[in-house]
Amino acid sequence: MERTIELTMAESVEAREAVALLERTKSIVNPRLRASLETLPGSIRRVAMYHFGWEHADGRPAEGSAGKAIRPALVLAASRAFGGDVEQGLRAAAAVELAHNFTLLHDDVIDEDATRRHRPTAWTVFGTADAIVAGDAMLALSLRLLAEDRHPAAGAASARLAACVIELCAGQQADCAFEERAPHEVSLDECLAMATAKTGALLGCACALGALYAGAGEEEASAMDAFGREAGLAFQLIDDLIGIWGDPGRTGKPAGADLAAHKKSLPVVAALASGTPAGAELAELYRGAMNTPSAVRRAAEAVDRAGGRDWAQLQAADRMARAVQELSRAVPDFKAAGDLLALAEFVTRRSR
Amino acid sequence: MERTIELTMAESVEAREAVALLERTKSIVNPRLRASLETLPGSIRRVAMYHFGWEHADGRPAEGSAGKAIRPALVLAASRAFGGDVEQGLRAAAAVELAHNFTLLHDDVIDEDATRRHRPTAWTVFGTADAIVAGDAMLALSLRLLAEDRHPAAGAASARLAACVIELCAGQQADCAFEERAPHEVSLDECLAMATAKTGALLGCACALGALYAGAGEEEASAMDAFGREAGLAFQLIDDLIGIWGDPGRTGKPAGADLAAHKKSLPVVAALASGTPAGAELAELYRGAMNTPSAVRRAAEAVDRAGGRDWAQLQAADRMARAVQELSRAVPDFKAAGDLLALAEFVTRRSR
Repeated sequence: MERTIELTMAESVEAREAVALLERTKSIVNPRLRASLETLPGSIRRVAMYHFGWEHADGRPAEGSAGKAIRPALVLAASRAFGGDVEQGLRAAAAVELAHNFTLLHDDVIDEDATRRHRPTAWTVFGTADAIVAGDAMLALSLRLLAEDRHPAAGAASARLAACVIELCAGQQADCAFEERAPHEVSLDECLAMATAKTGALLGCACALGALYAGAGEEEASAMDAFGREAGLAFQLIDDLIGIWGDPGRTGKPAGADLAAHKKSLPVVAALASGTPAGAELAELYRGAMNTPSAVRRAAEAVDRAGGRDWAQLQAADRMARAVQELSRAVPDFKAAGDLLALAEFVTRRSR
Repeated sequence: MERTIELTMAESVEAREAVALLERTKSIVNPRLRASLETLPGSIRRVAMYHFGWEHADGRPAEGSAGKAIRPALVLAASRAFGGDVEQGLRAAAAVELAHNFTLLHDDVIDEDATRRHRPTAWTVFGTADAIVAGDAMLALSLRLLAEDRHPAAGAASARLAACVIELCAGQQADCAFEERAPHEVSLDECLAMATAKTGALLGCACALGALYAGAGEEEASAMDAFGREAGLAFQLIDDLIGIWGDPGRTGKPAGADLAAHKKSLPVVAALASGTPAGAELAELYRGAMNTPSAVRRAAEAVDRAGGRDWAQLQAADRMARAVQELSRAVPDFKAAGDLLALAEFVTRRSR
């Protein structure tokens, strides 16, 4: 779910606003993140600094490409929506970003992914043992940041973040388990639940923590959590569509990549569950190697004809509508929630 | 460091007291631990329940052999030493045991150990992905237990436990790094620091958390931490001696096992650093395969002649003396610390 987004001249005002917001977030949160990583014991710090792109493998300083900062931006925007100031939300923003990067370090080991943010993944450079241990330490550091905080919301925020991490683990576990099952053995509900756990949960947690740190109550925090989850699921659905039909101007990712990798993404599972002839055709293609461009194209067409593409687009729109509804329920002054909406629109690529 | 301890008829009264204490701890803490594990998502819970020995691989209930419960016993004994009651310390005891078991799950993956507590390790049964994810979730659950607690000490306890986990990670990382270095490239100081991080830190944290939950201040908690660390290091030194010369009546582990595995344990590193002819002889043996009983015996003799055995025994005694000193500094009424002393003596096998 970490795809580089390159803006084109055709971008809308809202998208540019969101990008500016993310850049501002990085300039505020990254120094705090680096300061936290500096507290890690030497050998673990090295892996962490490499993973964030702030050091080369040999320890020399690097330019850095520490991700898009969507989660910390959500923390800060949620805090602002409840009248909080930046300083209040900063620690929570760093904690959420550390938790996110813990999952990336471990997911790359588990999925044996060799590239992340255009660089070799940490485990390919330092070995799996160091990558596992660095991920563990990053998770502990994330929760330590909140535990050491004297802000009155710190306890509730820690509890939410710890619970969220367990959900992220369940999502990753389900994702791995699905990989080993035949396509027709994964139901659409299971797939939606997995995406909610793996992607929605931390976006929701980021929003909830921002609200808590600005003094919001548990009920408002829960509504903010629901906003982030729904927006996260919309994001995943759009990401899955891009994984099939591509969005080369933005991601550089070739169309059909997820199909060639036999990924059981949401549009694919919807198509397989459709009970249509096109769904059966897709199942047949998924049983094969799908290593030619024409096979991948036939699979994409089958997803489309089986209704997987329309379903995913409608679902994404529906989830975004629900997200906005939750947001309006949670935030006292909806005008203050502009940044949250801009971020949600941005991550779901609807702002074109 | 998880060796089964079988008591013989020759055991002392103190050892029997410690064993009774551990049994009582298990009867109190295990139900709380199980209840916590029950809150984990299904597929992760299954790995966790298997790891604790409470379920077979297929999910059927098992008799269980969830470890010796030394860390939760230290939490409860430390709490008692400061006038706390059992109920107060129970949550911290469960949290510390979960953190310990998180390290076991990941260490087994990293070290590719196939057996734990006389059963196949979780990763050999469920695969490395599930074992990594279950460990992650167990760590998050551990910190969640404290974060969700309304006890006034919960924040300080969380912060200590999170910091301790980072130290455990550093210890495991150093352990792995040492494995890949030539014997003479590992200094005794590095080796002691590694053992402190990997073994001492969590025993110290257990004692500190027990004290905090009974209302002790940060200064007393730090002294309790120092007590646990020193006792933990004594424990590691004795454990390393057993790994060379054995203690078959108690552990069933054959003498020389650590030597045959080329382990850079503390007595070995002390011998290598001795600058004696016996040390040089040992280094030469460590460069070879050491796959015959006579080679292993020669290595053990070389450690002895180079002074590694005496050094380790003196160090262990010295560490225990320091531990007792820290304890007397921390605990207002030394008589109330009897259980802590019994546990410390027990884990260092000095109570014969």
